[in-house]
Amino acid sequence: MGHGIASNLLKAGYTLRVYNRTREKAKHLVERGAILVNQPSDVIESGGIVFTMLSEDSVLLEIAECDEHFVKKLGPNGIHVSMSTVSPDTSRHLSAHHSQSGVKYLAAPVVGRPDRAAAGTLFILLAGSSEAKQIVSPFLEKISQRVFDFGDLPWSSNIVKLALNFNIAAAIEAMAESFTLAEKNGISRAKMAELLSETIFSSVVYKGYGDHIAHHSYEPAGFQLTLGLKDIRLVLQTAAESSTPMPIASLLRDRLLSAISKGRGDLDWSALALGASDDAGLGK
Amino acid sequence: MGHGIASNLLKAGYTLRVYNRTREKAKHLVERGAILVNQPSDVIESGGIVFTMLSEDSVLLEIAECDEHFVKKLGPNGIHVSMSTVSPDTSRHLSAHHSQSGVKYLAAPVVGRPDRAAAGTLFILLAGSSEAKQIVSPFLEKISQRVFDFGDLPWSSNIVKLALNFNIAAAIEAMAESFTLAEKNGISRAKMAELLSETIFSSVVYKGYGDHIAHHSYEPAGFQLTLGLKDIRLVLQTAAESSTPMPIASLLRDRLLSAISKGRGDLDWSALALGASDDAGLGK
Repeated sequence: MGHGIASNLLKAGYTLRVYNRTREKAKHLVERGAILVNQPSDVIESGGIVFTMLSEDSVLLEIAECDEHFVKKLGPNGIHVSMSTVSPDTSRHLSAHHSQSGVKYLAAPVVGRPDRAAAGTLFILLAGSSEAKQIVSPFLEKISQRVFDFGDLPWSSNIVKLALNFNIAAAIEAMAESFTLAEKNGISRAKMAELLSETIFSSVVYKGYGDHIAHHSYEPAGFQLTLGLKDIRLVLQTAAESSTPMPIASLLRDRLLSAISKGRGDLDWSALALGASDDAGLGK
Repeated sequence: MGHGIASNLLKAGYTLRVYNRTREKAKHLVERGAILVNQPSDVIESGGIVFTMLSEDSVLLEIAECDEHFVKKLGPNGIHVSMSTVSPDTSRHLSAHHSQSGVKYLAAPVVGRPDRAAAGTLFILLAGSSEAKQIVSPFLEKISQRVFDFGDLPWSSNIVKLALNFNIAAAIEAMAESFTLAEKNGISRAKMAELLSETIFSSVVYKGYGDHIAHHSYEPAGFQLTLGLKDIRLVLQTAAESSTPMPIASLLRDRLLSAISKGRGDLDWSALALGASDDAGLGK
């Protein structure tokens, strides 16, 4: 993800210092003018902008909180654009931590996979200080097709991203149940997927997942089932903290837990659809 | 619905005899050359094709089964194209009933509302005898943008239509839960609807219902909640008969039952979304 984003910023003529755990992966960026540094905080200049795109909350916290150089070097007027999908709590925590050093924390999780990042057609869910949002806006325009603004509180964007992922998982389960109903009545699952995705459900989610669910094709994983469970857990945690019952989310958690207990944790998270088939006595 | 369909058949140059309970509603069709008759079976000629589009199973059975003239007049080689959304059992029953008189029963439920019927852009879910399907194919092309073929057993189409409607209801509930989560966290429901319908859920269902759910706007009813409950009941009945557990369908039935007990039966069926708000302690 980071590679595609950085590469579009370079293409737009910006100067970039980049860091990646695996140096080799930054090779193409260096060829195009990026300066590769040896540790994360070396990308920083005082009052500058830092983009992070990391695998999980703990890695983000390690780099942006535990390493004291991060906020000290950024200093007042510095901006941290945090693009990873992390929990609202992590955003709330980092936001408070950064503000003690005068650093602005913007949450900017994205919708889209690496191919969209490379094409510069991500959707960005942006939230945080208005002033900081204005400053980073020209950069975000170069790496996305559209920025959605979710207000002043950074963690709002993280909640929205979780809510979006919940809708994907719900659509996967609904397709799974209806395809299973079709199959048990002698109707082709693939034909059902075709009907949905080529009529009133014609969208990336139903087109993309419909076909995989119809054919029970869950490898390679675009988004691992274990990560899907993490997201649904965060949905339910956020829901609990705000006293919001979400019966479909509860059901999805059990589907995902069951999938993991059946050894499907490394498959794509749409493999939660196997649960409906299992329950109906159909082998994979 | 029938008006739009008949009007496109007339436009294509076909001769039509039409019947409607309310004669007045056929006025425009008569002006364009349709012959208005006094009772349903008067539209029939031996070996011809009859289209029915009726409000519910009982009315269809009354016209096509209880009235003996229906199959007698149609006779061998006659074709009954049954476009109403009825239960698989009704299709199974009428199919057997018609075949005793040599009449072919085709199930052809449609996807789309009256505006699509008028524009000739319905989707048709067709199933039944191959020979009969071939004969009616030129007619169906005039009234739809696409015909999906679900094989030789007429009731397959009715099951597919129910499965499609189930996916709509599931999407409504998933949106409701996620919009409620957003609202309880200070995020705009409308903004959530915009995000879904303008990114990876960009489709008729999410665009159409998303906005209504965001604003709790459920009148006038495009599809009454009581009719929605009827469909989900049929989904669960078909699921039970084929031993297919459908946890989201069970949850939807309870949502719809609860909505009716709260006096919402005449609202659009997307008003089932009020359940998530009620449960979260939010007034309408």
